Amino acid sequence: MSHTTTNPSGVTETSPSSSTHGNLIAASKVSGTSVYDLNDKKVGSVDDVMIDKSSGRVAYAVLSFGGFLGIGEKYYPMPWAALKYDTRLDGFVAAIDATVLEDAPSYSAGESVDWADEAYGRRLHEYWKVAPYYGL
Amino acid sequence: MSHTTTNPSGVTETSPSSSTHGNLIAASKVSGTSVYDLNDKKVGSVDDVMIDKSSGRVAYAVLSFGGFLGIGEKYYPMPWAALKYDTRLDGFVAAIDATVLEDAPSYSAGESVDWADEAYGRRLHEYWKVAPYYGL
Repeated sequence: MSHTTTNPSGVTETSPSSSTHGNLIAASKVSGTSVYDLNDKKVGSVDDVMIDKSSGRVAYAVLSFGGFLGIGEKYYPMPWAALKYDTRLDGFVAAIDATVLEDAPSYSAGESVDWADEAYGRRLHEYWKVAPYYGL
Repeated sequence: MSHTTTNPSGVTETSPSSSTHGNLIAASKVSGTSVYDLNDKKVGSVDDVMIDKSSGRVAYAVLSFGGFLGIGEKYYPMPWAALKYDTRLDGFVAAIDATVLEDAPSYSAGESVDWADEAYGRRLHEYWKVAPYYGL
């Protein structure tokens, strides 16, 4: 935590946090945001965002890849840390291709997910190779 | 021979993170969640959630207190850390009363907010007396 000197004239300082603060989006608008692969090709979009109520961290973005590479409408929860927001594309970028998705945890429209199942959470983080947002 | 396995699913561990992980909610469902004052009285609800795209942190919950204590439909962005989720009430609890809201940063339905304005973000955090989620 850093204290900055009071500057009544406005924002003149640049700090490491400057680049991130202000990069805000309403959760209601995240749904529908495009998701791109590493070649800047649009492969899907964000369907919803799972929020950890206690910590205020976004746990997962649920991606939808309807019709992508022959896959039907399926939902892939991805740890937020596995996605990078790219201001140039105005969308999220992830290391996604057909091979990666083949074994990735997913569910269909009719299925429900037990988000409280820790084993499922562990599997998600292990599959996408990111450290859990909890227990850090 | 008797087995004492009470949890065949394999989730038998308890860890400090157990209480927080699994406490997930879809952002699309946070909207409409009730907000209570310190006396368990419902005073409003969550209208939307502002997410910091880069860090994956929930920056603000935008609360709506339509008609509360004579105040018209107004929106109050509150730092997420100023809200506590109460599983008993299945809603958020905050130190909110008419006096607190009187001078709190707010906007009306027709107004837009410059979320990129760092001064506004500072004011919000100062008003609600919580350390900014950024720059920690």
